[in-house]
Amino acid sequence: MRSGCVNQACKVLRINPKEIKKFEPFDAETLKSFLKKELGEVDFSFSLSSLRKLPNFLRHDKPFKVVMVKEGKGRIVSDIVDEESPTYGLAIDLGSTTIAFYLYDVEKDLVLKEYSILNPQVKYGEDILTRLHLARKREKLLEIRNETLKAINEEIRRLGGESIYYLSICGNTAMSHFLLGLPVQYLILEPYPPVAKWYGLFKPFEVELNINPEGRVFIFPSAGAYFGGDLIAGLFYVELHKKEIPSFFIDVGTNAEVVLGNKDFLLACAGAAGPALEGGIFSSGCRAEPYAVYKISINRERNEVIFETIGNEEPKCLCGSAIIDLMAHLFKEGVLSPQGRLIKENWPERVLETEEGKAFLVFKSGERQILIKEYEIKAFIRSKGAMFCILSLLCEKVGLSFDEVDKFYFAGSFGININVVSAVILGMLPDSALDKAEAIGNSAGLGALKFLRCADFEEIRKIVDSITYIELNTEPRFMELLTGALFIPHVNLELFPRVKILLERS
Amino acid sequence: MRSGCVNQACKVLRINPKEIKKFEPFDAETLKSFLKKELGEVDFSFSLSSLRKLPNFLRHDKPFKVVMVKEGKGRIVSDIVDEESPTYGLAIDLGSTTIAFYLYDVEKDLVLKEYSILNPQVKYGEDILTRLHLARKREKLLEIRNETLKAINEEIRRLGGESIYYLSICGNTAMSHFLLGLPVQYLILEPYPPVAKWYGLFKPFEVELNINPEGRVFIFPSAGAYFGGDLIAGLFYVELHKKEIPSFFIDVGTNAEVVLGNKDFLLACAGAAGPALEGGIFSSGCRAEPYAVYKISINRERNEVIFETIGNEEPKCLCGSAIIDLMAHLFKEGVLSPQGRLIKENWPERVLETEEGKAFLVFKSGERQILIKEYEIKAFIRSKGAMFCILSLLCEKVGLSFDEVDKFYFAGSFGININVVSAVILGMLPDSALDKAEAIGNSAGLGALKFLRCADFEEIRKIVDSITYIELNTEPRFMELLTGALFIPHVNLELFPRVKILLERS
Repeated sequence: MRSGCVNQACKVLRINPKEIKKFEPFDAETLKSFLKKELGEVDFSFSLSSLRKLPNFLRHDKPFKVVMVKEGKGRIVSDIVDEESPTYGLAIDLGSTTIAFYLYDVEKDLVLKEYSILNPQVKYGEDILTRLHLARKREKLLEIRNETLKAINEEIRRLGGESIYYLSICGNTAMSHFLLGLPVQYLILEPYPPVAKWYGLFKPFEVELNINPEGRVFIFPSAGAYFGGDLIAGLFYVELHKKEIPSFFIDVGTNAEVVLGNKDFLLACAGAAGPALEGGIFSSGCRAEPYAVYKISINRERNEVIFETIGNEEPKCLCGSAIIDLMAHLFKEGVLSPQGRLIKENWPERVLETEEGKAFLVFKSGERQILIKEYEIKAFIRSKGAMFCILSLLCEKVGLSFDEVDKFYFAGSFGININVVSAVILGMLPDSALDKAEAIGNSAGLGALKFLRCADFEEIRKIVDSITYIELNTEPRFMELLTGALFIPHVNLELFPRVKILLERS
Repeated sequence: MRSGCVNQACKVLRINPKEIKKFEPFDAETLKSFLKKELGEVDFSFSLSSLRKLPNFLRHDKPFKVVMVKEGKGRIVSDIVDEESPTYGLAIDLGSTTIAFYLYDVEKDLVLKEYSILNPQVKYGEDILTRLHLARKREKLLEIRNETLKAINEEIRRLGGESIYYLSICGNTAMSHFLLGLPVQYLILEPYPPVAKWYGLFKPFEVELNINPEGRVFIFPSAGAYFGGDLIAGLFYVELHKKEIPSFFIDVGTNAEVVLGNKDFLLACAGAAGPALEGGIFSSGCRAEPYAVYKISINRERNEVIFETIGNEEPKCLCGSAIIDLMAHLFKEGVLSPQGRLIKENWPERVLETEEGKAFLVFKSGERQILIKEYEIKAFIRSKGAMFCILSLLCEKVGLSFDEVDKFYFAGSFGININVVSAVILGMLPDSALDKAEAIGNSAGLGALKFLRCADFEEIRKIVDSITYIELNTEPRFMELLTGALFIPHVNLELFPRVKILLERS
């Protein structure tokens, strides 16, 4: 999804002053004429710091680098440096759990480093709502903000400090509010109004981020309280808005956020489908983290549950994709009924009776065991059903069938790990997703990174402005759809022709 | 010359939150809709500081003030404050000798205070060239800059500090370089290239001026080393560029700077006509300052020189307008020959023989006397001739006669004090100036002030870009013209029909 765009957020031109043939009456005009000729762009202005350095650089023999940052429709000559000085951009995906960094070499158009750190906000609460409630008090908001800035500034310092000229940051709406110190007390009250849609472009000092003082910091805008800059960055990356045929963009995290769209429309919806799918509602569930099982198959004859863990270690918990695998296999083998009941007689060694009701034994080693409980499976079915209904509802709204959708793009680690066949067997994804699913990785981070390569403010503004958000709470049709989806795969098996064939075969 | 323009650099709208009928999904959009409706403008963005304050102001009953500053084509909501908070703009004319301040009440559209202080740079040299030579060294440049900033910031603090949201500053090219810390070592070397034409719009922290941190600082651009922001502000004020019929704009200071133009062209020229006219080359000359004689007439019969001094005190020196008066009267009375010689026999009591040659005694009190020496008069004639030739040259260049010029606008105190009849008798101004001269006051400061009322960046850019500057050094025609102008009034008396009549009468 990398465009051929050369409209870099920060651009660098090397100049040998000997190449400057003609001096204009003003030094800045001399440089401007040269830049126009070389770059074919027209609208240049100058930072004070570049003006202060310009006269000497122009009149010495040493080649130098002109660093230009994008602002609005024009470009600012932000700095002039020796040709040896490095010039970076930095993209940051400010997640609620981890913060991902992408260090970008402007001249080489190359990602030099890519890594994540833990978001220090976690100590104020694992989930965002806890943090938001804390941050209703201004001093707590500022404390959370400062912790976040400290952590980011420490990475900025390590990665190049003032050699970084552009920062592109995306985060969900709460993260953006924390980062900018915007009040959040109304964000948690109906109708949940964020302070702003378009946060804007900042000079580093304004947001207290210690990149080059003449650089710029772009914060991806929010389309709503539940549709933040991370999703906008994801859409910017996956480019639904440039496609002829509509596609789905699906990001499963704390919520399941789904967008259906193409060049003409972007229809968005978020639902509480996420936690279950991400492992959140299972006592043995977890995110895709080290020691997590992420893939499962079974062999009932040999009484085996075969799995792969992240890091190849002894398993501690099951992440969403593993749970989906397990549910699908148990259903195929008749151990799980279409209503979500565990059928002990079909695998007596593994279906146990516990104080909390029936449970499936995934793994046992000494005292430690991983159990999936029947009542958790019920909640899971609600989640998978919700996912299917969100997809159905979006299609219905625009009068499309699933067959008319081009792609199902899955963002994040969930998208990388999910077994689409399992998800279709469970009726979580429609039958046609089998041929159309595509994992796109961390689309939020990649979107922020794309901005460094292709800083098109207008395009991003267009994306935000063209999103129509469907509120599930006020959508009676969603509840109607959900009734049919609370079975595996669905009350209407005809919706899943290939699952039907599979079931008839087994 | 005050336009009906309402496009204030800083605009304030009072809002009673009860008037806000409809809340949008984002607080910033709620305010934006309201502003659009009230102001009819469309392009609003928000400072971080205003976003931080907005949610609470929107949800409390107290009326508040929204402060919006102009940037580019749009407006930034820069701050939100209690309705009691004052909101000011400040215009500064950064002269090389004095700094003039105009405090402007944004809501009342009223100038509250207007005064000058001495420019602390004077201690680095009375004339600009001395300061420029000193400031070739970076540390001296910064020292001069800091002294200037300190003086201005002290006034800003006294006048309202953070209640000031817009600063509009004009100064000549050297002053602008000093203020912004731009290197000046090339500004004093042929071809005298300033660092930039368009300095731009700054956030206060960038230029270290302590108005409201979310305010803006505009520095008037330069059209060249010898045509600075003070003149651009003057032109912006006098509005030659909006007139059908061409007019002259004449600013006599260290140099005489003259612009001839209308809506189609602006032709500029500067020459060393200034110092003499401003009193600079006379040992008894001075600027229009306290104790200076600014008006003179004579009564030869009674052996009297009648004068008025600034402040009505005993005279210390003669400013330019007084010298012009005196020369004209002496010429009319036959005490001064057309070649600039003092004729002793025509006023023996006052024409003295001194060690430096002949001199005219203006004033004597005890030991103190004010003398005008013959050799100084020669230099004066060169200056008055240069002024006439600049005017002639500009008219020639565009094929106009003086009769076709609409107005002669005189800037500054020179313009207020000058006796046009005297200047015409001397042949410094053409005959037709008698009916067309108009003193416009401190046009630089008034231009900076006008910007607070009418912040049209594009108009100013158009003025700067449309100026064609004539370099006298490389203009042989100037020397030709000058030969005829080194007489009083001119070798060709026909050029001064009304002076001719006057001389014939006497």
